[in-house]
Amino acid sequence: MVESELLNGTAGKPIRCRAAVSREPGAPLVIEEITVAPPMSHEVRIRIICTSLCHSDIIFWKMKDPPGFFPRIFGHEAVGVVESVGENVDEVSEGDVVIPTFMSVCGECADCMSPKSNLCSKFPFKLSTSMPRHETSRFTDLNGHPLFHFLFVSSFSEYTVVDVAHVTKIDPTVPPGKACLLGCGISTGVGAAWRTANVEAGSTVAIFGLGSIGLAVAEGARLCGASRIIGIDVNPDKYEIGKKFGVTDFVDAGKSGDKSLGQVINEMTGGGADYCFECVGLSSLVHEAYACCRKGWGKTIVLGVDRPGAQLTISSHDVLHTGKSLMGSLFGGIKAKSDIPILLKRYMDKELQLDEFVTHEVGFEDINKSFELLLEGKSLRCVIWMKN
Amino acid sequence: MVESELLNGTAGKPIRCRAAVSREPGAPLVIEEITVAPPMSHEVRIRIICTSLCHSDIIFWKMKDPPGFFPRIFGHEAVGVVESVGENVDEVSEGDVVIPTFMSVCGECADCMSPKSNLCSKFPFKLSTSMPRHETSRFTDLNGHPLFHFLFVSSFSEYTVVDVAHVTKIDPTVPPGKACLLGCGISTGVGAAWRTANVEAGSTVAIFGLGSIGLAVAEGARLCGASRIIGIDVNPDKYEIGKKFGVTDFVDAGKSGDKSLGQVINEMTGGGADYCFECVGLSSLVHEAYACCRKGWGKTIVLGVDRPGAQLTISSHDVLHTGKSLMGSLFGGIKAKSDIPILLKRYMDKELQLDEFVTHEVGFEDINKSFELLLEGKSLRCVIWMKN
Ligand SMILES: [Zn+2]
Ligand SMILES: [Zn+2]
Ligand SMILES: [Zn+2]
Ligand SMILES: [Zn+2]
Repeated sequence: MVESELLNGTAGKPIRCRAAVSREPGAPLVIEEITVAPPMSHEVRIRIICTSLCHSDIIFWKMKDPPGFFPRIFGHEAVGVVESVGENVDEVSEGDVVIPTFMSVCGECADCMSPKSNLCSKFPFKLSTSMPRHETSRFTDLNGHPLFHFLFVSSFSEYTVVDVAHVTKIDPTVPPGKACLLGCGISTGVGAAWRTANVEAGSTVAIFGLGSIGLAVAEGARLCGASRIIGIDVNPDKYEIGKKFGVTDFVDAGKSGDKSLGQVINEMTGGGADYCFECVGLSSLVHEAYACCRKGWGKTIVLGVDRPGAQLTISSHDVLHTGKSLMGSLFGGIKAKSDIPILLKRYMDKELQLDEFVTHEVGFEDINKSFELLLEGKSLRCVIWMKN
Repeated sequence: MVESELLNGTAGKPIRCRAAVSREPGAPLVIEEITVAPPMSHEVRIRIICTSLCHSDIIFWKMKDPPGFFPRIFGHEAVGVVESVGENVDEVSEGDVVIPTFMSVCGECADCMSPKSNLCSKFPFKLSTSMPRHETSRFTDLNGHPLFHFLFVSSFSEYTVVDVAHVTKIDPTVPPGKACLLGCGISTGVGAAWRTANVEAGSTVAIFGLGSIGLAVAEGARLCGASRIIGIDVNPDKYEIGKKFGVTDFVDAGKSGDKSLGQVINEMTGGGADYCFECVGLSSLVHEAYACCRKGWGKTIVLGVDRPGAQLTISSHDVLHTGKSLMGSLFGGIKAKSDIPILLKRYMDKELQLDEFVTHEVGFEDINKSFELLLEGKSLRCVIWMKN
């Protein structure tokens, strides 16, 4: 610690800074002075450069009952600079540019060691309100009351503390206002096509729901060389946006008439799409997506989150006789520490499109504007700049 | 046809021979004289050497309502010799030893061309009562009434006619009393592990139901190098039989006490099996099998046939958050014409075990004995010899 203290006067001490605190469900965030404790063992304190708003922030911000908790610091798509590190952190050091992620990579468990899983067993994904390893908060308000964490990231603050298992070091030359998108939503969509489904060149893809995640699936499928990408949405305006991300065909889900979506897609593709992605979060749509899949090899990938307790139902006969498979994709099957750098390189090589997802940018003091834009369906991603 | 007629006096003419005809649901078969018409274009007439009884024969033999039809000639696991061929048959000729199969390989459709599918689109699997291409029967009884076909094979007859898409030529030196098993059940089980699941060496497998199919899954998993094969059955006697096919552990499904099978298997394996196979045909067990799968990469493979209209139900949250996949396996993902010869070679090389499945052998006149043995749960496979 001696060296870092010499380099950085704040290491080892609490930092006072601004955070956008959510004190009540659904109410505007309040920019407050808070105190961010120094990182404990295996933890990293990060100065946030910029952060973007994801749909999951909105869901938990609206939530009146557990797992909705207040006061809380939301935000989980961000880029920052390491301010200081706790004991037992060798992977990053002061000044490194990093992306914190809600999914961890401990690097040692069976899942982290396997190329087939991105579900780290040591620090499993859960709806926690604190740090993953020490299970306490690093945030206190000016009255000395703790503030809850969100998804192990809490990036709506000038400084945050993140476990090193949740930190990915990135190339510092990548523009942070684009790199931050890979912290959650865009990685989830691109990864679902690339890692979970492993979409093959020349294949046909159907995407249910062209929100940010669905568009990111299209982008991932385009990147994998899919020759046909069919977008399905109730809002026909999505076709124009979709075209930017490789969508070649559009089905207006509200206007399929007497035909089921399964029939429409089967006719369009001569037997079904090779890969179907459910990005809306309706169990009933999973059934439709399954019906739209090509027999013999079709894969249905579930990305959307339905209400707790929702059940998927598929005919036993269909499962047995069609050779189709059904799978889920959390964070797009992405292993943050190894896959995010690959995606960033592909962005820098002008293969992966990220700029097109950023529809709005605001200063930190206008963070509530980003909520309004997403709630009104006007933004894909709004980047919030700390400018500190 | 001139050459074949010279070689074989029966080519081109109807053949009178014995068949075991099923005239009433659930009643003993009757050995009758029937007439087998010559093969039409793309068809092959086969002299059956031996045939074995599969559970599907029993299911349809008991069935009082459609798709149960009578009078019918059952049987769909067999080895025979080509007696004559119709026009446009180049693939086999008189004297070739063949296995007829209920699944086809046209060799030309998108599915047959793809390594990922075994569901030929040109002659899809269906519950037909006639030939797949010409849709008529080749069997008539002595009163001149047509007899129904079963699964495009109908091997409970000294002669049958099968479409060339349903015929696999095999090495004539393989003992037919073993080779016939690959016509359906054993290929289904072995293939589910080998082709559908692609079980990796060192992996852990759980098999729900240790009937012939479940044991064949164990044999396939053993062949793929699985290090642990857990059998689950309500009959504890199955453990001893299972050991012959590589079963290393047994769970008595009737004695798991307060724990669900999911809990038991998760504890035994430290987190779940890599591959779970449902071989019983109960939709509710698919749910259990899914729960027994390892998060991150576990695959649940459905082989069992539930009653028509049965639904599989899985929690949407589980699908999204566990990274597990669910898939069906018809005929074990086996492509008959290319995969059966591979399995027979592995049998001849003493890698694949087939002898152990043959628990009984009877002459054709005692075919009803094979039904009794299977109904009483006394046999795995009973081979019926034509001795003609
Ligand atoms: Zn791990
Ligand atoms: Zn998110
Ligand atoms: Zn075919
Ligand atoms: Zn069978």
